[in-house]
Amino acid sequence: MDSTREPARGGDARDAKAGKETVRRHNLSLVLRAVHEEGEATRAAVAARVGLTRAAVSSLVEQLLAGGFLTERGKTFSGHAGRPGTALRVADTGPAGLGVEINVDYVSACVVDLAGADRVRLTEEVDNQDARPEEVLARAARIAARALDAAAGKGLDAAGAGLALPGLVSGGAVRQAPNLGWNRVDAGRLFAEALRAAAPGRGEPAVTVDNEANAAALAELWFGGPADAPRLRGFVYLTGEIGVGGALVLDGALLRGAHGFAGEIGHLVVDPDGPRCRCGSHGCLEQYAGQAALLRGAGVAESAGARGVAELEARARRGEPRAVAALERAGRMLGLAVSAAVNLLDPDAVVLGGVFRPLMEWLGPAAERELAARVVSGLWAVGSGRLRASSSSGDAARGAAALVVRGVLADPAGHAPPPAPGARVVSSG
Amino acid sequence: MDSTREPARGGDARDAKAGKETVRRHNLSLVLRAVHEEGEATRAAVAARVGLTRAAVSSLVEQLLAGGFLTERGKTFSGHAGRPGTALRVADTGPAGLGVEINVDYVSACVVDLAGADRVRLTEEVDNQDARPEEVLARAARIAARALDAAAGKGLDAAGAGLALPGLVSGGAVRQAPNLGWNRVDAGRLFAEALRAAAPGRGEPAVTVDNEANAAALAELWFGGPADAPRLRGFVYLTGEIGVGGALVLDGALLRGAHGFAGEIGHLVVDPDGPRCRCGSHGCLEQYAGQAALLRGAGVAESAGARGVAELEARARRGEPRAVAALERAGRMLGLAVSAAVNLLDPDAVVLGGVFRPLMEWLGPAAERELAARVVSGLWAVGSGRLRASSSSGDAARGAAALVVRGVLADPAGHAPPPAPGARVVSSG
Repeated sequence: MDSTREPARGGDARDAKAGKETVRRHNLSLVLRAVHEEGEATRAAVAARVGLTRAAVSSLVEQLLAGGFLTERGKTFSGHAGRPGTALRVADTGPAGLGVEINVDYVSACVVDLAGADRVRLTEEVDNQDARPEEVLARAARIAARALDAAAGKGLDAAGAGLALPGLVSGGAVRQAPNLGWNRVDAGRLFAEALRAAAPGRGEPAVTVDNEANAAALAELWFGGPADAPRLRGFVYLTGEIGVGGALVLDGALLRGAHGFAGEIGHLVVDPDGPRCRCGSHGCLEQYAGQAALLRGAGVAESAGARGVAELEARARRGEPRAVAALERAGRMLGLAVSAAVNLLDPDAVVLGGVFRPLMEWLGPAAERELAARVVSGLWAVGSGRLRASSSSGDAARGAAALVVRGVLADPAGHAPPPAPGARVVSSG
Repeated sequence: MDSTREPARGGDARDAKAGKETVRRHNLSLVLRAVHEEGEATRAAVAARVGLTRAAVSSLVEQLLAGGFLTERGKTFSGHAGRPGTALRVADTGPAGLGVEINVDYVSACVVDLAGADRVRLTEEVDNQDARPEEVLARAARIAARALDAAAGKGLDAAGAGLALPGLVSGGAVRQAPNLGWNRVDAGRLFAEALRAAAPGRGEPAVTVDNEANAAALAELWFGGPADAPRLRGFVYLTGEIGVGGALVLDGALLRGAHGFAGEIGHLVVDPDGPRCRCGSHGCLEQYAGQAALLRGAGVAESAGARGVAELEARARRGEPRAVAALERAGRMLGLAVSAAVNLLDPDAVVLGGVFRPLMEWLGPAAERELAARVVSGLWAVGSGRLRASSSSGDAARGAAALVVRGVLADPAGHAPPPAPGARVVSSG
């Protein structure tokens, strides 16, 4: 039967019921996000914040407690769940986000709880350039499965998975990931299949794929900087990996572009006749400031990965001329590419993450001199503080996991429907 | 008496009255914009579109007719002003916008009516590099005054003025305009004073200052392309003048940046060790693709202005090798800078205006080859059609004037308050 031809009779009642359910779902999210943003709040404070009645908030809170989204702090007596004045927090068990970053020389998996805390973390150094995409994704799924096991031991259950990759991502698929050697790989579907095989008991978390710099920039936006300082709402983000990833945050949201491919600052040309890049162009920033170029320039083995970066840092700290020169050259090239982004976008700040973070002491001054010389507005003088290292609290895996958590906060009922009002409230404690 | 200490008594009534007035102003704009967007509409069609009652729309329409914002089409019998079925249009007399563009080698002034039509246009070739900012602004004000006189002859009265300049603009002032040699010039205030002196009988139109590429991009957004084709909602805009201006349009709005300085694509570096630019940097795009560089490269006198560009076009059309080579070199540099903007922003399209428009036949192919080689997404292959010439229908002066008109459409009551409901309607015909 063609449902569009169903008689209209009864439609109003169905619409009203559907409308009521939409409002309930919306209000559940409103209350959950209010508690999330406050960190800790009483029902009265939530009601004042969201503009609903105390009675409505109490009912919604009961549903969120029952669904495992909220807990009560310091609750020592049973039967007092609805007592006014009891502080609510988002649960540190229950719905969580799985985040997985596949990069050229490592895989990182983490599980983030509803409050945004990174509760499980596994990182393995592997060479992902030597394997087919299917093998790399299966390898990542096995690491993710171990993270899910560890999370289950803490009472956390992934409501979805975020997969971050160093490439152009659109509609869940990778269009191109030059440094992985991937071209049109249906990464979302392949990873979901691999995860099903690697973690057969863990349901089928929906997979969202994103560019790794985008995910890292979201982590910086949501978790970066000291908790008491105002967060940056707009910045250009660069992450030093084997390549150089980039992302643009404007007014607290990612600028994704017409097809999802915005932010490719690693492929800004700093020398039109420079060496060929894996993207097909010549003289891209990542040929001068990517991890491989940095290590090579300093005479450290390119294949040394994270140990190589630590070695480069140690040599620069000892003042070894070749290491210092390699970093200054990379800093100049960073400054040149960043000046283009600044002249185009006039951002509040530029944040350098990944391997740039520990190397900022040497990269920063060289980049700042270039910016001071090239930014038209004159707002980027040396020492302006607009060029800064990323915080240590976020990376692409955490950002990808936090995207899943944001989805749960935006629609808790859609992730683990709490019972309808009036159902018995079962304490999770 | 300190009004904040006035007793609260009577406040509710005042608030209610103020609230009602706010709603009336909002609804006047709603109705005016509905007619503006439809081009021509009956009261019934307006009511259906804006979701107000026929009676409310009729009352608002009477006020807009009385204020001179709307007219009735084909109205041949008096006393039938409210007759249902009579088509409404925005007035081609009454409130209008004055737009003035000051560029390095010309000043352009126009008056745009409520429908967006360019009704008066004056352009003078002048050398604005040789004069102090005050003199240049006084010169522009004299041209603007003549435009206002011509507009008055057509029954048009400027509700405000938009001033477009090739420089960084913030808060009505020019921070820096390298090609004019301006540094921290309070252009808005100075132009308002000069206009008051040059056009003493014309009131004191409020002056809004904007970057000329921003204004030209808005003209492209609002007036560009064939009327029956879907308008571009997001694009990078470059305008070839003595320098190279740029603007970014995302989702139908300008991306202005944290301080209003976004879009400076003319100062993207295409050769780090290239010639010194007036902005203080080296090897900026405008040193290779600005009008001065184009003419110099082709062996045409730099000072020849618009005639020089026409001469360059004629020489290229004859296949003169030096002209063709200069254009191809400029096209490559344009492609290089545009590839940076595309890799960063992933726009739907890039639009080339100003002197680039007549030279597109030679600049375009060279730029497209560079884009094909350098854009990571692979979406910018030669012949993709994503790089295009601007339409002929918009320029910075028209965009600046249209910004004023948008302000009138957004709040007609704030510009020439129509009488309250019940006042006698006076026909302007």
